Amino acid sequence: MNTPILGIIGGVGPLATAYFMEALIKRTPAATDQQNMPMIVFNDPQIPDRTSYILDHSCPNPVPEMAKVARWLEDAGADFIAIPCNTAHYFYDEIVRSVSIPVLNIMHETAMRIAQTPDVHVVGLLATEGTARSGVFQDIFEQMGLSVIVPDDDSQEVISELIYGQVKANQPYDVQAFLLEADKLRERGCDAVVVGCTELSVIYQDLTERPSWLFDSLDILAERCVQVYLAARAAGGNVEM
Amino acid sequence: MNTPILGIIGGVGPLATAYFMEALIKRTPAATDQQNMPMIVFNDPQIPDRTSYILDHSCPNPVPEMAKVARWLEDAGADFIAIPCNTAHYFYDEIVRSVSIPVLNIMHETAMRIAQTPDVHVVGLLATEGTARSGVFQDIFEQMGLSVIVPDDDSQEVISELIYGQVKANQPYDVQAFLLEADKLRERGCDAVVVGCTELSVIYQDLTERPSWLFDSLDILAERCVQVYLAARAAGGNVEM
Repeated sequence: MNTPILGIIGGVGPLATAYFMEALIKRTPAATDQQNMPMIVFNDPQIPDRTSYILDHSCPNPVPEMAKVARWLEDAGADFIAIPCNTAHYFYDEIVRSVSIPVLNIMHETAMRIAQTPDVHVVGLLATEGTARSGVFQDIFEQMGLSVIVPDDDSQEVISELIYGQVKANQPYDVQAFLLEADKLRERGCDAVVVGCTELSVIYQDLTERPSWLFDSLDILAERCVQVYLAARAAGGNVEM
Repeated sequence: MNTPILGIIGGVGPLATAYFMEALIKRTPAATDQQNMPMIVFNDPQIPDRTSYILDHSCPNPVPEMAKVARWLEDAGADFIAIPCNTAHYFYDEIVRSVSIPVLNIMHETAMRIAQTPDVHVVGLLATEGTARSGVFQDIFEQMGLSVIVPDDDSQEVISELIYGQVKANQPYDVQAFLLEADKLRERGCDAVVVGCTELSVIYQDLTERPSWLFDSLDILAERCVQVYLAARAAGGNVEM
């Protein structure tokens, strides 16, 4: 029996990648090292910043480097790919086209999960400015019948500072500011709030108490990867999605 | 300028590998994703259990698979290798011989660090039974002028349960039992106690308060990797150790 291998386009960001691996491992039914999911991870710091490219092209297009890592993962033996970065999914179609193995879509998986949650119609988005402004998240969620509310400009500034000025910068992060911005979206009528940036997932994962209406995209992607892995392992190694 | 790439023989164990990456990232002076250390990680669950092989050969020799991963990392472009598993270092010389790039030695790095710590002469070891019984740790520490005390049989049983029955098994772990075993070694006259198994490092890293006399091998290996990386980056990519 072949065991399917997960390839991870990592380093976007690096800490989020480590947290993603932790989430995958904690969700895998494994009583020994040997029962765990095989993973190949390339933490590639050469991938340019996704948000800067989306907003004003102030850095190179990240697609060539992400496609290079995707192809490298496929050549190295990966059977399917995950990218623990929401903003990178603006370029999802181009990454998919660069390989012949399936690539999971963090936004699609998150939208699917939330669409199946009772009494959720309006969703708030905590993400990079790149994700919030590009509209990709909104498109995917609206296709599933969900409305999306994004933070106002002042809130987005606070959220961007949490992502870029704190988590990505290896600085202590302000948990209260994170929870306050989530609450503000709730107060604006959101039934659910999505942690839609994996740097914010680092803050979410470190919470000792997690509100039930807060949905972490990193968590949902990890769960889906484990499902795909277990199904493929049961099917002799073939990844079907 | 070439940026050196760290290769990680991962999956021994998987959670320890994720924690090791986190420790590396938190120690890297980087204000953006792009300033981080490039890493290639293969979380390979096919590496047989090191302790079972050392104690009674009740599983296959892990060397061929670890050497395969080491060569794979070298072929993939890694410039130096780290293995976040103390017990695996019983086979260190064989892994080193399988590649032409440097492989850091977690026990050697830990012994070096502790030998440089004032007023430390006697060191307690919290590790797998494989590490404790094989004598490799003791040899390395004694060569640096340090005496080693290992837990008695009852304590070793508790420690092995923390490693195999809890962390590796994805179960909640008993922090108090971990601290109690560390304290027992202190009471037996140890100036320092080494967290000499990276599953125990998972428990250590989650502590909110860390006793100053407790030295984590995972932490020390991570710091050394960052030193090697920064020196090599400054030298144009050449890893010299």
